[in-house]
Amino acid sequence: MSKKNTDELVFLPLGGSDEVGMNLNLYGFGPEHKRQWIVVDVGVTFGDLSTPGVDVITPDPAFVEGENILGIVLTHAHEDHIGALAWLWPRMKAPVYATPFTAFLIREKLRDAGLLDEVEIIEVPLGGNIQLGPFDITLVTLAHSIPEPNGLAIRTPAGLVLHTGDWKLDPDPITGAVTDPATLGALGDEGVLAMVCDSTNVFVEGRAGSEGEVREALGKLIASLSGRIAVGCFASNVARMDSVCRAAEAAGRRVALAGRSMHRIAAAAKSVGLLSGLQPFLSDQQAREWPADEILYLCTGSQGEPRAALSRVADGTHPYVRLGKGDHCIFSSRVIPGNELSIGALQDRLSDRGVRLYTEKDHPGIHVSGHPCREELREMYRWVRPRIAVPTHGVRRFLVEHANLARDLGIPETVTPRNGDMVRLWPGAAQVIDEVPAGRLYVDGGRLVSEEGEAIRERRHASTNGVLVVSFALDKRGRIVSDIDVRGIGLPGDADSPLGDALDELAERAEQAVRALTGEALEDELVIEQAVARALKKASQRIWDRRPIVETIVLRL
Amino acid sequence: MSKKNTDELVFLPLGGSDEVGMNLNLYGFGPEHKRQWIVVDVGVTFGDLSTPGVDVITPDPAFVEGENILGIVLTHAHEDHIGALAWLWPRMKAPVYATPFTAFLIREKLRDAGLLDEVEIIEVPLGGNIQLGPFDITLVTLAHSIPEPNGLAIRTPAGLVLHTGDWKLDPDPITGAVTDPATLGALGDEGVLAMVCDSTNVFVEGRAGSEGEVREALGKLIASLSGRIAVGCFASNVARMDSVCRAAEAAGRRVALAGRSMHRIAAAAKSVGLLSGLQPFLSDQQAREWPADEILYLCTGSQGEPRAALSRVADGTHPYVRLGKGDHCIFSSRVIPGNELSIGALQDRLSDRGVRLYTEKDHPGIHVSGHPCREELREMYRWVRPRIAVPTHGVRRFLVEHANLARDLGIPETVTPRNGDMVRLWPGAAQVIDEVPAGRLYVDGGRLVSEEGEAIRERRHASTNGVLVVSFALDKRGRIVSDIDVRGIGLPGDADSPLGDALDELAERAEQAVRALTGEALEDELVIEQAVARALKKASQRIWDRRPIVETIVLRL
Repeated sequence: MSKKNTDELVFLPLGGSDEVGMNLNLYGFGPEHKRQWIVVDVGVTFGDLSTPGVDVITPDPAFVEGENILGIVLTHAHEDHIGALAWLWPRMKAPVYATPFTAFLIREKLRDAGLLDEVEIIEVPLGGNIQLGPFDITLVTLAHSIPEPNGLAIRTPAGLVLHTGDWKLDPDPITGAVTDPATLGALGDEGVLAMVCDSTNVFVEGRAGSEGEVREALGKLIASLSGRIAVGCFASNVARMDSVCRAAEAAGRRVALAGRSMHRIAAAAKSVGLLSGLQPFLSDQQAREWPADEILYLCTGSQGEPRAALSRVADGTHPYVRLGKGDHCIFSSRVIPGNELSIGALQDRLSDRGVRLYTEKDHPGIHVSGHPCREELREMYRWVRPRIAVPTHGVRRFLVEHANLARDLGIPETVTPRNGDMVRLWPGAAQVIDEVPAGRLYVDGGRLVSEEGEAIRERRHASTNGVLVVSFALDKRGRIVSDIDVRGIGLPGDADSPLGDALDELAERAEQAVRALTGEALEDELVIEQAVARALKKASQRIWDRRPIVETIVLRL
Repeated sequence: MSKKNTDELVFLPLGGSDEVGMNLNLYGFGPEHKRQWIVVDVGVTFGDLSTPGVDVITPDPAFVEGENILGIVLTHAHEDHIGALAWLWPRMKAPVYATPFTAFLIREKLRDAGLLDEVEIIEVPLGGNIQLGPFDITLVTLAHSIPEPNGLAIRTPAGLVLHTGDWKLDPDPITGAVTDPATLGALGDEGVLAMVCDSTNVFVEGRAGSEGEVREALGKLIASLSGRIAVGCFASNVARMDSVCRAAEAAGRRVALAGRSMHRIAAAAKSVGLLSGLQPFLSDQQAREWPADEILYLCTGSQGEPRAALSRVADGTHPYVRLGKGDHCIFSSRVIPGNELSIGALQDRLSDRGVRLYTEKDHPGIHVSGHPCREELREMYRWVRPRIAVPTHGVRRFLVEHANLARDLGIPETVTPRNGDMVRLWPGAAQVIDEVPAGRLYVDGGRLVSEEGEAIRERRHASTNGVLVVSFALDKRGRIVSDIDVRGIGLPGDADSPLGDALDELAERAEQAVRALTGEALEDELVIEQAVARALKKASQRIWDRRPIVETIVLRL
């Protein structure tokens, strides 16, 4: 039997390994030429100032397009696990499996994208089972910062893989069942070939802490305050929402929601029986008029997002939330790396209005992470005892540290794949056997384009170097028959050297460049345009110490 | 006597208040119409991804241009206190006062700018005195993360102002004298009208810690390691350099410098007798060949700056520093807010090479701040007992918190000016009496331009929205006599809707827009260009959900 015909079990992250966000994991079973695949999670990451004009980024699923995909299984409803579904489903076209809360939210997404009728969504109960060809998947309820976080116990002819998804251990998770060590221990007893596991907090000693403790801390803090109170938190953390609402009610306050995703998540939570037994949220109109000491606003925008509720409150432009002197803003959230400056600017503006601020830094206990710290990781490895540890959900040094930790705990094999590294889990020792294309796609101008695409490269170049535009008309013999018009976009002038002078000089250079051409060169617009661009770039280097994009348009009459 | 003729003492920050960096402080004395000024510090701040193409930002000195400036006094040599001198001196043209280490570094700057012969630099000894009209200034030696940090005791006919500059209390500062409580207490006894004071660490309880403790921690850590060691730190922290060198020597290692500013600062330090009694630094050539266990590299780039030494080491492109498996990189530095992602990316790349990392997070003690924490602030206020506290050197919520702290300590008056707020310190209660223009200037393409300037706005707009260029020729009667050529810069197409199709459609729209014009409109290029731009923006909104910059060039034959 040739090697190509040998059954293999492979794990292939196309997103979410060696980075945070944008999870897209594949598991394949079978011989190379007729492998069957399952996809676990289809997430996005978000653009920043380094990707101007791009807000949403997805993994590139090119490798798996056209392959035999048996199903798409979603572990939980965070955007870095489900956000790309509407963008990438048309390239994968497989049935989608999710628990009820997650299913509610993806239905919404697919409806917005006009795909709801096309996608088969199979709702699976917590702890339920999914049969997909050689993959027999059992959902394992864990704890996380969102309802219904599921690990996947994936049984295959090659053995059992535990895909943890995002998790932590929480003795009082508020929205879900407590993680059962017996369940995980039983997997360990059964024998786990590999565990693919969350690395987010591998550098943090101890434990993430419990939502129950947060409830207590928030309850005390909120009870101690008079004046208006706004609480910023991630809308998807329904346990947190629930805790804030109960703390408000205990303090004689009614709750108003501020921000679209608060409303969206509240609806999803109620659809699965969460957020029950609470007074109704105040309407916008009520919130506008309610007495200061009797209201609490649950707000989006704890990361300083410019269009979210808290930013508008800080700017004084929110339609019904007003905060000022004597009022309070509680950040029941963490600082996502990269958001330090925008959060700082938000807090400055609030502070400037006289609002008192409370963050986890100065008020420990008002936020806990949803990911496992080292003690939780140790516990999990002791229960599950996998043969192979595959750290995921982290940047490189996190994966490396996680592998070190696993080795210290006696796990025989570790492998830390990059996106696109195909890891053979069985047969033989775990190893990277192939590198497949993996990258990012940008949602740009309503299109899904390559991160290497020309548009984004041009915009980035223009943003630092500016653009020169030059146009003139030639007759058939290559004589210039119009003015040479040069325009600068994003190129500076000042009193000592006005932009107009520079443009005049550039027009002369362009003319010289054309006059220097002879014969056939003058018949080819492309040759002329390139000659002019070269001359203008050189001159720009001298004038501005820069090489702008030069767009030359030669009109032939 | 009219109010205008009354003597006043005013403090006016044009930079560095309500922000970190870019310090430019003015003190004025006299009646409004013939006030005499001193300038304290002339610093820069650095551009980031939100200011594409702009690396250096200075305060706008417009208010003080043409005023009677008696002198420019520099407290210490950090870039946020001296970095704008070469850019702004020509607009202020006053003699510059500095202690020897600072003077060495500004001479270098002014030489590079071709200004050294024009600027009068007066070197003042530590503890020295400067007489400038009504201002009698005595330097007060404090501790900070650079040699020769000076507070200024400014005596005026209205009373004594203590301008702290950047400071902390350090019982073992290594490069300077220990701060003398008696000196500060004596100022307090004399009576201090106002203290203008550093707010950087007002949210941090306790004390910043001592360079002496860092020396000990680095000594232990470095002695415990085998393999190559790189230490990243701020070059300007000469005490830290000294500590690292001595730790290296104690561990049988020679030191090589990597990065231009390491060499620059080492020269400045030696010019004032610092870094003495050490073995010479290895040359680049020696460093390349020295045994791994016997070398230590002192590197720039601890903030992840892409062109600095550590980044090149991480990329494997440094000419003589190589780190790999079994080697070590110690970050004896803090994370400057905003640099989290670039530092993280640097650390990932190092970690990926097998280099072990040490940061102040996991190895407390290998870095201390140069700014006062709350306990130090309390001590200073107890010694100096000013009537007025003027927090500076911090963003808004830091200034507000600092003012709260001062009030809690019994300081009778506090005022937290923004840049451009003129604070009258005397006579009467301290208050903002005027707002003068204050803003930022960008160093852009070798020119100093307004932050509101068109070039930067255009580049920012182009970076998210792209540029459309359209050109065509008209005859005298306004008939189109060439092709309509439309080019897109930074505008995406994809397989379903190629860019070419979009540009063809836009050319049609441009033609329709021209044809819709009649009579006089067709005689005016500007009118035609605007009509075409409007049409193309509207179409772009539909095609890309964006409004690019549209540059229309009409050539008239």
